[in-house]
Amino acid sequence: MLDSLFRPRGVAVIGASNNTFSIGNRVVKNLITHNFKGGIYPVHPKESEILGLKAYPSILDVPGPVDIASIVVKSTMVPQVVEDCGKMGVKFVIIHTAGFSEMGPDGAKLQDALMDAARRYGVRVYGPNSQGVMNSDPDVSVYANFTFTPMRPGRASILAQSGGVAELLNLNLRKMGSGFRMYASHGNATDVNTNEILDYFGNDPETRTIIMHIESMKDTPGFIERCRRIARDKSILAIRTGRTAAAAKAVSSHTGSMMQQDSLTDSIFEHAGVMRFGTTEEMISAAYAFATQPVPAGPNVGIIANAGGPGIMCVDECVGHGLSLAKFSEETKAKLRAGLIPESYVENPVDVAATANADHFGLAITCLNEDPGVDSILIPMVTPFFVDCEAIGRKIAEVAKTVTKPIIVVVMTNENWASTVETIKSAGIPVFDFPETGARVLAAMARYSEIRKRLDEAPAGAAGDKAGAQEILSKAPAGFISQTDAFDILAAYKIPIARTSQIAAAELPSKIKFPVVLKVDSADVVHKSDTGGVKMDIARKAALQKAVEEMSGRFPGAKLVVQEQCPKGAEIIIGMKREKGVGPVLMFGMGGVQVEAMKDVSFRMAPLSEGDAARMVRVIRSFPLLKGSRNLPAVDLAAIEKLLISVSQIAMDLPEIAEMDLNPAIVYPEGQGIKVVDVRIKKQATNSTK
Amino acid sequence: MLDSLFRPRGVAVIGASNNTFSIGNRVVKNLITHNFKGGIYPVHPKESEILGLKAYPSILDVPGPVDIASIVVKSTMVPQVVEDCGKMGVKFVIIHTAGFSEMGPDGAKLQDALMDAARRYGVRVYGPNSQGVMNSDPDVSVYANFTFTPMRPGRASILAQSGGVAELLNLNLRKMGSGFRMYASHGNATDVNTNEILDYFGNDPETRTIIMHIESMKDTPGFIERCRRIARDKSILAIRTGRTAAAAKAVSSHTGSMMQQDSLTDSIFEHAGVMRFGTTEEMISAAYAFATQPVPAGPNVGIIANAGGPGIMCVDECVGHGLSLAKFSEETKAKLRAGLIPESYVENPVDVAATANADHFGLAITCLNEDPGVDSILIPMVTPFFVDCEAIGRKIAEVAKTVTKPIIVVVMTNENWASTVETIKSAGIPVFDFPETGARVLAAMARYSEIRKRLDEAPAGAAGDKAGAQEILSKAPAGFISQTDAFDILAAYKIPIARTSQIAAAELPSKIKFPVVLKVDSADVVHKSDTGGVKMDIARKAALQKAVEEMSGRFPGAKLVVQEQCPKGAEIIIGMKREKGVGPVLMFGMGGVQVEAMKDVSFRMAPLSEGDAARMVRVIRSFPLLKGSRNLPAVDLAAIEKLLISVSQIAMDLPEIAEMDLNPAIVYPEGQGIKVVDVRIKKQATNSTK
Repeated sequence: MLDSLFRPRGVAVIGASNNTFSIGNRVVKNLITHNFKGGIYPVHPKESEILGLKAYPSILDVPGPVDIASIVVKSTMVPQVVEDCGKMGVKFVIIHTAGFSEMGPDGAKLQDALMDAARRYGVRVYGPNSQGVMNSDPDVSVYANFTFTPMRPGRASILAQSGGVAELLNLNLRKMGSGFRMYASHGNATDVNTNEILDYFGNDPETRTIIMHIESMKDTPGFIERCRRIARDKSILAIRTGRTAAAAKAVSSHTGSMMQQDSLTDSIFEHAGVMRFGTTEEMISAAYAFATQPVPAGPNVGIIANAGGPGIMCVDECVGHGLSLAKFSEETKAKLRAGLIPESYVENPVDVAATANADHFGLAITCLNEDPGVDSILIPMVTPFFVDCEAIGRKIAEVAKTVTKPIIVVVMTNENWASTVETIKSAGIPVFDFPETGARVLAAMARYSEIRKRLDEAPAGAAGDKAGAQEILSKAPAGFISQTDAFDILAAYKIPIARTSQIAAAELPSKIKFPVVLKVDSADVVHKSDTGGVKMDIARKAALQKAVEEMSGRFPGAKLVVQEQCPKGAEIIIGMKREKGVGPVLMFGMGGVQVEAMKDVSFRMAPLSEGDAARMVRVIRSFPLLKGSRNLPAVDLAAIEKLLISVSQIAMDLPEIAEMDLNPAIVYPEGQGIKVVDVRIKKQATNSTK
Repeated sequence: MLDSLFRPRGVAVIGASNNTFSIGNRVVKNLITHNFKGGIYPVHPKESEILGLKAYPSILDVPGPVDIASIVVKSTMVPQVVEDCGKMGVKFVIIHTAGFSEMGPDGAKLQDALMDAARRYGVRVYGPNSQGVMNSDPDVSVYANFTFTPMRPGRASILAQSGGVAELLNLNLRKMGSGFRMYASHGNATDVNTNEILDYFGNDPETRTIIMHIESMKDTPGFIERCRRIARDKSILAIRTGRTAAAAKAVSSHTGSMMQQDSLTDSIFEHAGVMRFGTTEEMISAAYAFATQPVPAGPNVGIIANAGGPGIMCVDECVGHGLSLAKFSEETKAKLRAGLIPESYVENPVDVAATANADHFGLAITCLNEDPGVDSILIPMVTPFFVDCEAIGRKIAEVAKTVTKPIIVVVMTNENWASTVETIKSAGIPVFDFPETGARVLAAMARYSEIRKRLDEAPAGAAGDKAGAQEILSKAPAGFISQTDAFDILAAYKIPIARTSQIAAAELPSKIKFPVVLKVDSADVVHKSDTGGVKMDIARKAALQKAVEEMSGRFPGAKLVVQEQCPKGAEIIIGMKREKGVGPVLMFGMGGVQVEAMKDVSFRMAPLSEGDAARMVRVIRSFPLLKGSRNLPAVDLAAIEKLLISVSQIAMDLPEIAEMDLNPAIVYPEGQGIKVVDVRIKKQATNSTK
C-alpha cells in the first residue's frame, strides 16, 4: 500500500539547502508553498534553519513521524542515508539523485547497495533518478517533488517514468484549465513500480482518469490484469514513446530497457483496455474531458454550432474518427424549429445562427440532452460581438448542471472573451480552441465506452482434451514437434483438420481415399514447398508409391505424412507466439501474398473473447476478400472465429507451446467450415509450467 | 488586379451605424482602431456623425476617392446601393449582407440584380455574405472586416470562404505568437474569387506562406495552374472540409456547392503542389514556421534536448512523419564532446543535460548548423529552475541570427518562463508547447521542400501519332468505341498491345498463331468475362471456328475479335477519367482482388512527370507485390511507368476521350515488358475540342 507515499504524515528532505538553485531547496519550498498538511523536516549537516524551518543535522535527529524522506544527497552517500532512514522508521525514500543503474555498472552497484539497505529495514524505495510525487487532495496537499508547476486539484492522475514528460503532461493539462489528483514520476522504478502506483490510483475514488507515459514495461501480465480491472471504472490513457527504431536506441540509452515491437504494445494495450494516443496533446485533451464529463453511452454526437464552417469541420472530424451524427427525433426537430430563430437549421449539425442568444443555446442543449438518439453534445461556437456571449456562457454552465450526457465546448475567440471561456470551464465543462480537438475528444470518449463493453466480455472457451494434449507434448522433444503430433493436438481440441497420417515406402496403407498430398515431416525443413517437400494431386496408389520413394530419397531419414487433399478455398493463417514477459499473442491474416508481402495481419492477446475473435478477423485490410464481393463468395467467418478461440484455448491450456502456426487453414463458403492443412508447433526449450 | 481592394485609398461604409452591436458600427470602428491610412466615410441616411467621423447621407455625397464600399444594408437594397457606388466610381464593393444565392431562388435573383448593376458600372463585387478583407502592411493597415481579432503583422496570408474558419485561423495564429500579412474571407465569391485572391497573395513579396480553407472549388484548372506557379516560391497550406458524406450534406446547405470525392481533392492538391493538412491546428502551426523560417534542404533533423523523455518523443514523431535523424559528422561529435558537460549525449538526439547553460545550447546549435548532414534543427527544452533559462532563450535568439537552417523550439514550461518564450519568439523562431507539434511542423517543411523539387519536374512526353488517333476517334460514334479502334489508338502511341483483330465466322484468317483468345466487342457488354464474352486457350483452328459460331449465337450481331493469348504475369489496371471541371485524372492499381475488393489504387492528374509516374506506382499498398519478394520476381516497373506516361499523353492530346481503362495490362518480370490485353475507351458525347 502506498498510502504513506501519497498521504504522508511528515516529509524529511535530506540534502535540504538554502541555495535557491538547488533541488534540496526547491523540494522544501514546494512543500511549504503548497501548504503541506504534515511536518516538513529539512536535514542539513550544518545549517540550523532552511527557508524559515528548523533544520536537523541528520535524519536520526528528526522528532516527528516521517513517512517520506526526500533524498537529494550525492549518489555515493545514498546507501548510508537509506540505512539511517531505516533506523528512523521512514516508510518511503524518494531518491531524486541520479547516477545509478541508468549510468552503467558502477551505478548499478550503488543501486544494489541502497536496495540492500532498504530491504534490511523494510524501507520502500521510490526512484532513484526520480522527480517525486504530488497529491492535490486538500487534506494532504503534498508536493514532494522538485519540479515547478503549481499544483491545482483535478481528477486526472498522472503517471510517467520520465520527469520531463510528467511535467509536460501536468503543465499542459493546467494550461487547458484542468488540474490533477495525484502525480507520480518514478524514474528508475527499482522498487515502487508502475503497476503498484496504477493500483493505488485505481483505488482512489477521486481519480476519474489515469494518464500515463510509458517508455518500458515490466511485469506486463500484472499491468494487463490491473488495467483490465481499473478500466471498467476509470479510463486509462497512455502514450508509449520509443516507437521507432531510431527512438528505441535513444530509449535504451535513456532507461536501459529494450523496446519491444510497436504492434506488441498495441496488442497489450488493446487487451488491457488502455487507450493509446498518438500525441501528448490529444491525450491530455481527452483526459480533461474524462476528468470532468460522464462517459457517453455510444457514438452518436449532436452538434450545436453558431457558424457554418466550424460546424462542418466538426462533422468531418467526428465521422472521420468513428463517431456517428445523431439522427434527431421529430419531436426534437419540432421543438428546435419552434424555439430557435427562423434562419436556424434544425437537423444535425444544428446551426442556431450567429445571432442566437443564450436562450437559443439553452434550448438546443436541453433538446439534445432529452433526445435518446444523442449520446454526446459538441458545441463549436464563435463569439459574435453583436450577441451577449457572456450570457451564452452562463447559460451553458447553468444548463450543463442538468445534462446527463457529456458536453464538449469549442470557443473560437480571443482574449476579449476570456471570461466567457472561464464561465464555461468553471462549470466543469472542457473548452477547447479547435473544432477538431473537440471532435477527437468525443471520439476518444466513445472509444472508452466501447472498451468498457469489451472488458465485460467473458473469455471464450473451447472444449478440449487438455490432458491428452499434454501427454503428447510431454513425450515430444523440445523444438518443432512432428506433424502428426501437432495434428493430434489440434484434434484433441476438436479443430477440423485434414486427415493426416504417417506413411513409409515399405508399407503403404491399404485403404486410401485419393487424391492425396505427400509431405515431408521434419523439424529441419522449414519451407517445405520451396524444397520439394510437398507433392500434391497424387491420384493413384502407384503415383503415391513413386512419390514416397522420391521424397524419401530427397530427405533421407525424414518422416513422411500423407494427407487428404482438401478442395481449394480461401487460405488463412493463424499463429500464436508466447512473447517473453508478456504472454501468448495470437496472429491472424489471409494466406499467400496478403501476409507474405503485405504484412496484413492482426494481433490479439489470449484469452480471446468471442468479440475479440470477431474483431480480429474484421480488422485486417484484406477483410473484404473474406466477407465477399461481386465475384467472391463470403467465407465461413464463424468457423474462423471458432478456430481462433480454439487456438486461444490451446495457448492458455498448454504453456509448453512456445509457438504455433496453422498455415494455411482453408476456409470454405459460409456454413461450409474450415480445414487446417498444415501446422507447426514449437515446444518450449524448458518446460515453463514447472 | 486587386490592388484597390487590399490597398484602398478610401473606404466608405454604407450602413454605418452608432449602434455598437451592429456590423455597420464594427467596420467603422475596426478601420479607425487599426489606423487605416486612407479616408473613412460612414454613410447613413440620417446620422451626421458616426464614431466621431462625419457621416454622409449617401455614397454619392462622399468627397474623397473611394476604392472600397463596405455594404451592410439589407439585401433588397443592395442592388441600388451597388448602382450608386458605380456612379461614384467605387472600385470594389464588399458586401457583408447575407441573403443571396445561399438562401434559394429569391436570393439568387437579388444576386443577379446586384451583379447586373456592378457589371454596368465596372464595379467589382466581393461577397456577398462575406466577412471582408484586411491588410496588415503598415503603409495601408486596412481592417475592412466586421470580425474582432486585432490585426498583427506577419508573413502568412489567410484565404477562407467561411468567415468562421477564417477567424479561427487568424486568432489561433495570433495565439501562437504569429500574425498575418493579408486576410480574405470572401463568402459567396460571386465575382472576386479564390483564384484571383490567390494570384494577388502569390505576387505579394511580403507573403511567405498562404493558408487556405476550401469548401468548394471553382475553376479547378485555374486553381492548379496558379498554385503550381506560386508554390515554387511560397508554400500553400490548405484544409478542405466537407470531406465526409455527412459533412457534404451540410456543405451543400451551407454554400450551395456539391462536394467532390475526397480522393479527387487529394489528386488536385498533389498536382497543384498544395499541402493538405488534417487539422486547423497542424496547418497553422506549420504556417507559423513557414512564415518565419527558411525551407529545409531535406529531411534530416538534428535534435537538441535537455531532458531524455521529450527528446525521444521528438525522435518518434520525426521518424513517424517521414523525417530522418541526421547522422552527425565525427567533427560535430568531437566539438560537442569537447564543449558540452560530461553527462551529455553527443549523438542525435543530442542531450545537453538538464544542467546545460546558454553556452552549451549555443554550441550545439552552431555545430548542427555547420554539419552538412543536418537540414533542420529541433530544440525541445524544459526549463529547470536551477539554470538561467532566460539566458538560454537569449542565446538561442542570438545564435539564430547566424543560422541558415530552420530552427523550431519547443519550450515545456509554465507562465513563470513566459519571458523566455517571448525572447525566443521575438527573434522570429516559432515556439510550440508540445514536442510532437515541433516534429510535425518540421515534417511539413520537409514535405514542402519535396514539393518544390517535384514542381520543377517537366511533364513527361510520349511520342504518338496524334493525328492518326484523332482520325480514328472522329469516325467513331460517341460512347464506347470498338475494341479494334481502341487498340489502334494505343498502337498509335506505341503502347505494347496484344495483337488483336476482328474476325467473322464466314472467313477465318488463314494464318493464326495459336493459342488465341476470342472476345466479343460490343459497347453493350460491360463485364465480358461474366457473360461468356471471353473464350481463352483456343489452341486450334477447328476450336476457333466453333467458338466463333457459339459466341456469334450468344451475342447476335456483335463484333468479335481474336487476340494472341499472352503468357501469365502480374495484372495491373490503368485508367483515365476526365473529371468534369477538373481535368484528366489517371488511376493505377493492381488487377484482381487488390482493386476490386480492396480499392487499392492511386490517382494523379495528367500530365504526369516521370517522377509522378514512379510515385504513382509506388504509393499503392500492394506495391510489395510488384517490387518482388521471396517468392515473387520483381516486375518491369519501368514498363508500367512508361505506359502511365503514354496514357497521360493520350489524355492531354485527345480531349475527345472521356474515359479509358486498360484492364488488365500484364506485366512481366524486370526487363520483359508489359502487354495491354483489354482496353475500353469512351468518347465524349459532345466533342469538347470544338
